Amino acid sequence: MSVRNIAVYDTTLRDGAQAEGVSFSAVAKVQVAKRLDEFGITYIEGGFAASNPKDMEFFRLIKTVPLKHSKIAAFGSTRRANTAPEEDKGLAALLEADTPVCTIFGKSWLLHVTEVLHTTPEENLAMIADSVRFLKEHGKEVIYDAEHFYDGYKDDPEYAMAALKAAADAGADCLVLCETNGGALPEEVAQITKAVVDAFGIPVGVHTHNDGELGVANALAGVNVGAVHVQGTINGIGERVGNCNLSSVIPNLMLKMNLECLPNAKNLKQLRALSQFVYEQANMRPLTKQPFVGESAFAHKAGMHVDGVRKVSQSFEHINPELVGNQRRILISELSGASNVFLKAIEMGLEVDRKSPEVKKVLKQLEQMEKEGYEYESADASFQMLIKKVLKKHKPFFDLEGFRVINERHDPEEGCLSEATVKLRVGDDVEFTVGEGDGPVDALNQALRKALVRFYPVIADVVLKDYSVRILDPEEATAAKTRVLIESGDGSNTWGTVGVSENIIEASWEALVDSVEYKLFLEEEKNKN
Amino acid sequence: MSVRNIAVYDTTLRDGAQAEGVSFSAVAKVQVAKRLDEFGITYIEGGFAASNPKDMEFFRLIKTVPLKHSKIAAFGSTRRANTAPEEDKGLAALLEADTPVCTIFGKSWLLHVTEVLHTTPEENLAMIADSVRFLKEHGKEVIYDAEHFYDGYKDDPEYAMAALKAAADAGADCLVLCETNGGALPEEVAQITKAVVDAFGIPVGVHTHNDGELGVANALAGVNVGAVHVQGTINGIGERVGNCNLSSVIPNLMLKMNLECLPNAKNLKQLRALSQFVYEQANMRPLTKQPFVGESAFAHKAGMHVDGVRKVSQSFEHINPELVGNQRRILISELSGASNVFLKAIEMGLEVDRKSPEVKKVLKQLEQMEKEGYEYESADASFQMLIKKVLKKHKPFFDLEGFRVINERHDPEEGCLSEATVKLRVGDDVEFTVGEGDGPVDALNQALRKALVRFYPVIADVVLKDYSVRILDPEEATAAKTRVLIESGDGSNTWGTVGVSENIIEASWEALVDSVEYKLFLEEEKNKN
Repeated sequence: MSVRNIAVYDTTLRDGAQAEGVSFSAVAKVQVAKRLDEFGITYIEGGFAASNPKDMEFFRLIKTVPLKHSKIAAFGSTRRANTAPEEDKGLAALLEADTPVCTIFGKSWLLHVTEVLHTTPEENLAMIADSVRFLKEHGKEVIYDAEHFYDGYKDDPEYAMAALKAAADAGADCLVLCETNGGALPEEVAQITKAVVDAFGIPVGVHTHNDGELGVANALAGVNVGAVHVQGTINGIGERVGNCNLSSVIPNLMLKMNLECLPNAKNLKQLRALSQFVYEQANMRPLTKQPFVGESAFAHKAGMHVDGVRKVSQSFEHINPELVGNQRRILISELSGASNVFLKAIEMGLEVDRKSPEVKKVLKQLEQMEKEGYEYESADASFQMLIKKVLKKHKPFFDLEGFRVINERHDPEEGCLSEATVKLRVGDDVEFTVGEGDGPVDALNQALRKALVRFYPVIADVVLKDYSVRILDPEEATAAKTRVLIESGDGSNTWGTVGVSENIIEASWEALVDSVEYKLFLEEEKNKN
Repeated sequence: MSVRNIAVYDTTLRDGAQAEGVSFSAVAKVQVAKRLDEFGITYIEGGFAASNPKDMEFFRLIKTVPLKHSKIAAFGSTRRANTAPEEDKGLAALLEADTPVCTIFGKSWLLHVTEVLHTTPEENLAMIADSVRFLKEHGKEVIYDAEHFYDGYKDDPEYAMAALKAAADAGADCLVLCETNGGALPEEVAQITKAVVDAFGIPVGVHTHNDGELGVANALAGVNVGAVHVQGTINGIGERVGNCNLSSVIPNLMLKMNLECLPNAKNLKQLRALSQFVYEQANMRPLTKQPFVGESAFAHKAGMHVDGVRKVSQSFEHINPELVGNQRRILISELSGASNVFLKAIEMGLEVDRKSPEVKKVLKQLEQMEKEGYEYESADASFQMLIKKVLKKHKPFFDLEGFRVINERHDPEEGCLSEATVKLRVGDDVEFTVGEGDGPVDALNQALRKALVRFYPVIADVVLKDYSVRILDPEEATAAKTRVLIESGDGSNTWGTVGVSENIIEASWEALVDSVEYKLFLEEEKNKN
């Protein structure tokens, strides 16, 4: 049985960069392109050649990078009305980008031709044909993006098809139908795509958006009727609500539809890492609820589901999480019941009986803490300290006597200075230290480490990796409760801790203290074995 | 032409409450139910009667609330194996909930019958039939949720259909096919749903999940082949990646498929408000990229799109945002080009020429600020202050000489205390004030207001409404740059301001100062007119 190949065309660096809150540096773009290439994406659209100097810088940089799998595409538009292609600045910029592939978009919808471009239907067809032909004459692989194709087709199928024909006759290598406004239904996409696939002898692609929450479904609907090229972005980032999400399209194509789209099927295991990498480079917080690759995609909370998953993993998992590089997570919460707490205690190496009063006591304490605003889903280490405290298996490593942080700015030219003092007791010794930092939490962290390192040298290995703040009651603003999550690491492990208080400094302090205590607990366990 | 009616079944309060990070209080559940009723949802599933005391409290409370449109449903399971329905605790809890509708789920997949329930295929059928019959005998409208129906059908269609027949023969009012694991493709859902619609003479519903990013598409696929009942949650909240998102299904059904699902079509204009309300009650941050109802759903960033939208709104909007209670937004960013800055300046009542050097100067400054980590998309007021400063139309209302914040805790039993001092000059007067608060920002805010109110009494009207913190470089943690966004209001307007610094206190201070300056600017404008 021959398997159909689907070309994946990534436009994270161009359409994705148009998303609210997204901004890639040229260097970040190169990093992303390298990862996309390693993963095995067929085409990487690097940017809009004519519109952004940063994009041109990317094209210059990427030429020095040897790529294994991907072809780089530069994006642009058809020539301006009443301009010869040789004199068109946009087309010149495409050539200057010096990429093997050029993707140009043109109009298929009469409304746009007359109302946005202010030109005639005939001139628009000439613009398409001239531009494709010009780029082909310069030896480019030309992908023609038919903007607003579905809306245009619904409005005037004859003109929409004539626009495609102009591109095809001029030598376009692929006709991509763009569902630009993102509002079409899958059955419309299927029907119209099929009409195009049937009419033209060259590869047809689809470019969809998620405005109706149907971006992925519309892409798959196109593939179902014969499209062989899918455009989208990693994590679905893009203007408005985003583009078709390749992080979902790719596993659906491979695992559900048995189609091939990567040079090596086992690369799929890199999907979650790729998704996280793109979030990082785009400086966005990952969407935990993201299908396939999100932190919560295989997280089980309700007691019954956890029980089911333990019995048969297929029960509540549509795929094996490892196939996309993800993993199962058991969440700790009031809904989770004794079976989760029990699993977690086992994980920690504690000997507890599932039906013991201890497990009930932990559950009760947990419920109380959650009412106060704590959450342990991202703060495993704090949860483990909590279990140990409730089970009275916790021996304090130090006693805190107090702390103070001062932040001040007296000269507008200088920044704000933060200075912290910490006083604590280890046995009979009292340590009183001072630290300064880029902010109050940094200063507290410096002072705390300084106080402890004399007694516990391993504390020197602990670094803060991430710090996040959530205001729990938005209506009360600064007087509301604040939850701070801190991620720490020591080179081989990472762990999360949580603190809650009306005062952001106190919440941060609490999470900091849990973090160092957890490290000391790890060390103690290690020395025991 | 008669229009087909689709019943919408909301399970935000039950399946939604199983989402990571979601926890509704019983009172919040009542508030959400009232809003769902006003909106016109057909069924509201209030909770799992047997599993959670909070849910039982909800059923008790909701009975005292007069509802206009919605019927309340209690959720539970079929009786336990080898137990008479009269002696089953779960069924007893369903009766105790005292709702007009009971929804019970049962097994359709042999794997689950033998491996999770540990019973026989025959006993499972008896469990379904007995439970439905028992609830019907007690006068309930019974909705039968066939858990894992699609997976069960793919595994053994005969048994899956036999399970449905057991429910139908026992008098179930509606058979709901659950795509529990969320991994099916729309064409599978369509094919299997059609087989059920064709085989049974009673209403068929669909309950889908979003694990393949196809939750909405799968629900619509079911409706396309005759399902008349759709289950889901507002904002798609739910376990793992979430349930089918009703906030997208409802507008798709009404605006794209011309089906009716609300008692009054104009209620659709409340969709965004409903979505925001549910996020608030669930204590979740709204997803800005959410289709139809998200803050970014009709936001335009790229210069070209903004230009297009200004010319013809249909160009880049699949529906009129007002239909779902949303609105168009023009985003300010480096990609936006002169046309956005120009529109924003016009909005502010400034007289600037589109091609003037001033607009270019603002763009340049904007680019610089964005490089430093500022973003103005949620900080309109800071952006307006920036424009005024660049255009030299800004006259400072006060000069800051310095501030200091002290946070200290010396007795572990007491909380952390925050005290702030602020020194500023208005004309020749120097004010030196001190304030205390629940945290450093609250304390600074108190001191700042105290210093200004003598000169500008309107400052007394300004309240902080929301405060959020974003760490810009997660790898550098507490030593990284921090961006603070503050939302302020004065009873009639609300405005957003931004501050960026390595020090969270300084970033907060900057956003606070912009906020009061903006208020003073508003006041000045008002007095001019």
